[in-house]
Formats: sequence, structure tokens, C-alpha cells
Amino acid sequence: MLEVSAALDLILQQTAPLAAQRLPVAKTLGQVLAEDVAADVDSPPHDKAMMDGVAVAAGDLGQADAELQVLETITAGDTPQTALEPGACVRIMTGAPIPPGTAAVVMREQVAELPNGRVRVALTNTTAGKHIMRRGASMHCGEVILPRGTCLRPLEVGLLSEVGRAQVMVVGRPQVAVLATGNELVPADEQPSPGMIRNTNGPMLLAAATAAGAAPHDLGIGRDDREQLAERIAEGLQRDILLLSGGVSAGVLDLVPGVLQQLGVRQVFHKVRLKPGKPLWFGVSQHAEGQTLVFGLPGNPVSALVCFRLFVQPALQRLAGQAVASESKPLEMLRLSEPYEHSSERSVYWPARRRGTMVELLAWHGSADLRHFSAADCLAVLPAGERRYSQGELVEVLDLG
Amino acid sequence: MLEVSAALDLILQQTAPLAAQRLPVAKTLGQVLAEDVAADVDSPPHDKAMMDGVAVAAGDLGQADAELQVLETITAGDTPQTALEPGACVRIMTGAPIPPGTAAVVMREQVAELPNGRVRVALTNTTAGKHIMRRGASMHCGEVILPRGTCLRPLEVGLLSEVGRAQVMVVGRPQVAVLATGNELVPADEQPSPGMIRNTNGPMLLAAATAAGAAPHDLGIGRDDREQLAERIAEGLQRDILLLSGGVSAGVLDLVPGVLQQLGVRQVFHKVRLKPGKPLWFGVSQHAEGQTLVFGLPGNPVSALVCFRLFVQPALQRLAGQAVASESKPLEMLRLSEPYEHSSERSVYWPARRRGTMVELLAWHGSADLRHFSAADCLAVLPAGERRYSQGELVEVLDLG
Repeated sequence: MLEVSAALDLILQQTAPLAAQRLPVAKTLGQVLAEDVAADVDSPPHDKAMMDGVAVAAGDLGQADAELQVLETITAGDTPQTALEPGACVRIMTGAPIPPGTAAVVMREQVAELPNGRVRVALTNTTAGKHIMRRGASMHCGEVILPRGTCLRPLEVGLLSEVGRAQVMVVGRPQVAVLATGNELVPADEQPSPGMIRNTNGPMLLAAATAAGAAPHDLGIGRDDREQLAERIAEGLQRDILLLSGGVSAGVLDLVPGVLQQLGVRQVFHKVRLKPGKPLWFGVSQHAEGQTLVFGLPGNPVSALVCFRLFVQPALQRLAGQAVASESKPLEMLRLSEPYEHSSERSVYWPARRRGTMVELLAWHGSADLRHFSAADCLAVLPAGERRYSQGELVEVLDLG
Repeated sequence: MLEVSAALDLILQQTAPLAAQRLPVAKTLGQVLAEDVAADVDSPPHDKAMMDGVAVAAGDLGQADAELQVLETITAGDTPQTALEPGACVRIMTGAPIPPGTAAVVMREQVAELPNGRVRVALTNTTAGKHIMRRGASMHCGEVILPRGTCLRPLEVGLLSEVGRAQVMVVGRPQVAVLATGNELVPADEQPSPGMIRNTNGPMLLAAATAAGAAPHDLGIGRDDREQLAERIAEGLQRDILLLSGGVSAGVLDLVPGVLQQLGVRQVFHKVRLKPGKPLWFGVSQHAEGQTLVFGLPGNPVSALVCFRLFVQPALQRLAGQAVASESKPLEMLRLSEPYEHSSERSVYWPARRRGTMVELLAWHGSADLRHFSAADCLAVLPAGERRYSQGELVEVLDLG
């Protein structure tokens, strides 16, 4: 049976960033640039004042203070009408272009009003260039300021606007279809009759895809019926990822692998040496429009969510053009809050909760017990084998977000 | 002038969680529960099998193996038709209800087929209760499983579905209006004429609001004109938060505080002992539908973003019913990668980048230089005063997300 890391490698080998698309900048938050973006202007476009105050000439510097004639007032958006000579100054507002001949800007708090349009300016701490931002100091026209591969945060959205990009090429947003399978499932708003349970995995996996930045598509509940399953699955194969839950363990009604094969989905692996989550199935469908990654997740909700976190989330990152977290940084290490005696043939991902630098393994009734799992904010990784962990021992921890 | 923490306290004193609203569960990701949610069923609803295999009776346990007659096959969603007696078993699938008389479930891998509907079952490691999850082990009908105040992750969305909640009461999502002001501004898709610059803050602040989980509303660009500003601001006062950028420093055209006063917005403070971001203005408007928090952010984009991070983001968390990060956990501490000589009358929030456990202060041309700020993933906090920091010294760091 495959180890977790080998299974993830096989998934990522099948996964490449999606095609680029041009989008309005306002729609690109969290997406990844698919082009180099260059400045189309110098910024600032002119030498400008960084404070409200007065612009003074070089010849007036070096004195303790000076009485100067105010020539005009320049605000942001204005064009200076006069050049500065010693003995004169202009009132200037933050962001406004400084007039030719300006040596420094003196902040408003150091300027006293005098009669007849004159001011007294305290100059003791004023050196040449003070409170002036030079043309192009932030960026020069033609310079690449955001390279392809940059993930767009609010700050980058601002920067794209500054250089005139109302639209931009980004790696596409992954489309994720979700189909919960099982004769025992009823929708959340129905009362289950004896033997039946509500569809937990469908809404949960749609939310997990959304939280991971993907666009979710709900395919509802698929009954254990070959024809109906085939129809829903074919619909899901029009997306970048199809998530199925249930129907992949070894039960007699576990039809999913057969239906996938019949629809030309190539199995890459089935089963991973992992607890919870062993029955995971993974395959790829190649078709005219591209390819679909198909994950057959276990039917128990905890198993489904652990598999999503370990395998689907990295695939989504790769599809979106992002660095895959597990490859770009090591896992966090925390200290066990209690001793623990561990024995398992598979690696166990145990629901856990951070307490400062410690991690507490939670009491929990196994893979169908989502309720006690909801106290978890992370998974503690306990490798396969027998091991007596002592209190304070370091274990790897995987964030649950 | 107010210190940062005093300014934040004044803001949070004016800020309470928004009214609750009933929403479809699929729309509530990231929101906070405004009701206690109880289980409406026992989960599991019956004693159930946790493995595919056979259910065996108590009288057959204790042997190395047993030859048993298969009575029926029970899959998830079925109701058992017969009770188990010693010498008999039923085939059972994961999740299916076990028949009366079942002592344990034996996994499929330990079952060998024999002729005439009989099987040989290896029982060496099988103890009473093995691979059975008892009715109600995860939750009991009537028990509160998600208390008011829980933040809804994908896992909780699954749990709500499990207990039949297709709709749920959550704290409302904050509505944030954004108005960039200034005669010098043109939209991002226009070519600025001399002296003009593109509107960077509008798109950036709308994105910041979105990233913080709020619903953004774009009020466009407001010119430095009292009447037009009053009209746009009145529109913004219909939201929970109004963000203005520009127009709040001490320039002659800085009309914003006057217009706000005229519209009945009560000033709470103006100016914070902070760099960048000193001109921050904060006020509150009380009206028939509730209240609006009004932030007059500085016009320089770096200052605007730092003020958003320090003041608007905590207010949004409080409005959304979340714990305010600064109150719920201490700031992260990292070690300076280089020595630094610091001198400022205000606390400085310096753009910085994590390098493992170190933090590097970035080269940067001040509050108009968004371009060099875009290399930052955090802000290093350097308190007011003169101080020679040595390499490796611990400083507080604020995440930029």
C-alpha cells in the first residue's frame, strides 16, 4: 500500500497550473499572476512633497530660520506655476508636485504666518531633499514590478491599479465538483428514516473547496445505481477536480471504481497507508478540454476531510499556480501535552488542538465522529509503528485552518 | 496624540457584533453562529459497523476461528431482518446497522468463503464491541454540539448538515463602503495627465475588506468638492463601515472632516502616534438603522493599508462576532536579521519579511511607495523613542496575511 508522501507525489505529478485567463483586477484576489506586470509610469510621476508645509529653495537652507514670500499654493493634482528663488516659498500639500528650484519641504508645524503673504520658517533640521520623494523612487516606467507567479493580495491589487491595470492575466481558479454517494443518504433538510443518515460530506466538501479558493459545483447525492452514478460522474468530469465521497471501500455496493473505469478515468492508485482515510481512490480523466483529477474520498466524514486536507488541498494549490505548502515549508512541530502509547500499521492523523507550544490529542470515536473532531484545529501526525510517546515529545502538526 | 493601543480601544468600544440573520448553511463559511445548535438525532442513529466484514454473535467469540452460516447481507441504509445466534453471521458494510445479538464485527480480510453460504472467520483478535460504533457515541439527540459564537469552518458546515440544519442563524457579514477622495485621482484604466495619479486606494481597500470576510461596496472617486463629497458619504453611511482615503491630513483641500461633521458623524479621534498612518480620523454615525463606523484613512497607500490592518481589521472581526486577534493572543516575536538604529517620535510599523525565525526590515521609500512594500509579508513594530537594535534582538511582528 502507498505511503502518504508517495501518494501525494503521484497526485502532484498529474497536476499542473491551469490555463491563464484575463480578469478584472477586482476579481483576482488570492489568484496568481500569469504575466509579468511592468510599470507604465514613473511613480511618483514627479518630485513630490511628502508633508503638508512649504517648499523652500537651496539658498535659504543652513539658517536657523528665514522670512519668505509665499508665491502660490500647490495641491495634489496641480501643476506648479513658478520656479522658486531664494527668499520665496510656496505652500504645498502632501502628494503635490514641488516647483523647480525646490531644495526641501518644511512641515507646516514649523511655519509661522506673518502679514503681507509672508511666513517665518524654522529651518534648523531641514537638509536638502527633506520630505521630498523623487520621481521614479517607487518605480520606473517599463520596470517589472510584479513578476508572473505573484499571489495577489490587497496590496498587489492596489499596485496593479497604480500601474493602470484594470484587467490582468491570472492562473484560472480551479473548478471543483462534489458528488456524495450512498443509498443511505438524505439531504440535510430531510428527516432520515431508520437506517438512513443525512448527507454531511457534500456540504462539507463544497465548503472545503470554497475555503481553499476554488469554485464549487454541487452534484447532489448519487445513489448506488450504476447508470445514475455514470450520469452524475460524467457531469463532474467537466471540471478540474471531481470529488466523490463514499463508494470506494470494499463493500458489495461500492460501484464507484467500476463506473469511473467505464467512463475512461484511469486509476492512479487505490488505498493509502493512512488512518483515517485508507480507502482513498485517485485517478485522472483526459479529455478534449483538458483533464480532471478524480478523488474517491472515503464515506466517513472525518476520513473525507483528512483526505481533502492531505491530498486535495495541495492539488488545488498546484492547479492555482501557488507553491504547494508541503513542498515550500516544513511541517510545524509541537510538544505533546500528555504521554501517548501508539500502535498502528498505518500513519495516523489524529485530531488535535494547539495549547501554546503544546498540542493536545483529542478524545474521539473514530472516522464517523465529526462532532468530537470539531474541537480540533490541527492534525497530529503519528507515523506507523509501535511507539511510547512521552509528555513534551515533539510531533509534526498539520494545520486545519 | 493617541497611542495605537488607545486608539484601537476607542474603536472597539464603539463596535459590537452585528444583528443575527438566518442564512443557508452553504453561505455561512467563515461566519459566527448566533444560536446554540443541538443535535436532533442520535449519531450514529443505531449501533453500526465501522468496517466491511461480518457481524458475529457473542457465543462465537473466544475461539481461534469459526465456521458460520451467512444469514443475509446488510448495507448502509438497510434494516437488519434477522437476529444473530451463535453459529450464524451476517455480511455487513461500513456504516450499516448491526443486527440484534451482534457482539463484534470482523473485517473482511479475516473472512474466507466456504461452499453453501458458509464462511470461516478468524477470531483471534476479536473482542466484544470491536469495529462497532454505538448509537449516540458521536452525539445524543438534544445535546448542544455547536455553541453560539462558533466560527464556521468546512467541518462545522458538515456537522450542521449532519443535524439537519440547512439554514442557521449567524452574525451578519459586515458591509464596507469605500470612497477614495482627491482631485488628483483618475480611475485605474485611465492615463493620468501631468500632476494626476491613478486611484490605488479604492481597489486596494475593497480587496482588503473582501479578504477580511466583509462585503465590499465601491463608491468610486470623490473630488475635493463639498457637495459631491457629502452625497457620496451619505451613501456610505448606509453601511456598517465607511472607509475614506485621503482628505484627512492638514491640507487646505482636506474637506472630509468638515463634511463628516455636517452629516452628523461624531468625531471620536483624529491622529494617532503612529508611522505611517498618523492622520487617521475615526468617528461614528448613529442613525435609524443602526450605526456606521467611519474611518478617514490617509491618502498614501502604504499608510492606508497599515491603518486598515491595525484598526479596521479588528473592528471587522468584532462586528462579525469573532474574537479580536490582538485581544485573544499575543503578537508573534521574531529576531531582527540585521542591526537597526531607530529614532522616531511615533511607533513605526516597518514593512518586513519573515526568514524562518528571523525578520528582515525591507528597504522602502516611505508611505507612497507601495511597490517596495509589496515584498513585505509582515510589519515589524518599533516603539517610539531612540534605540539601537542589535542583530538577533526580538521584535513584535504583525502578520499581513
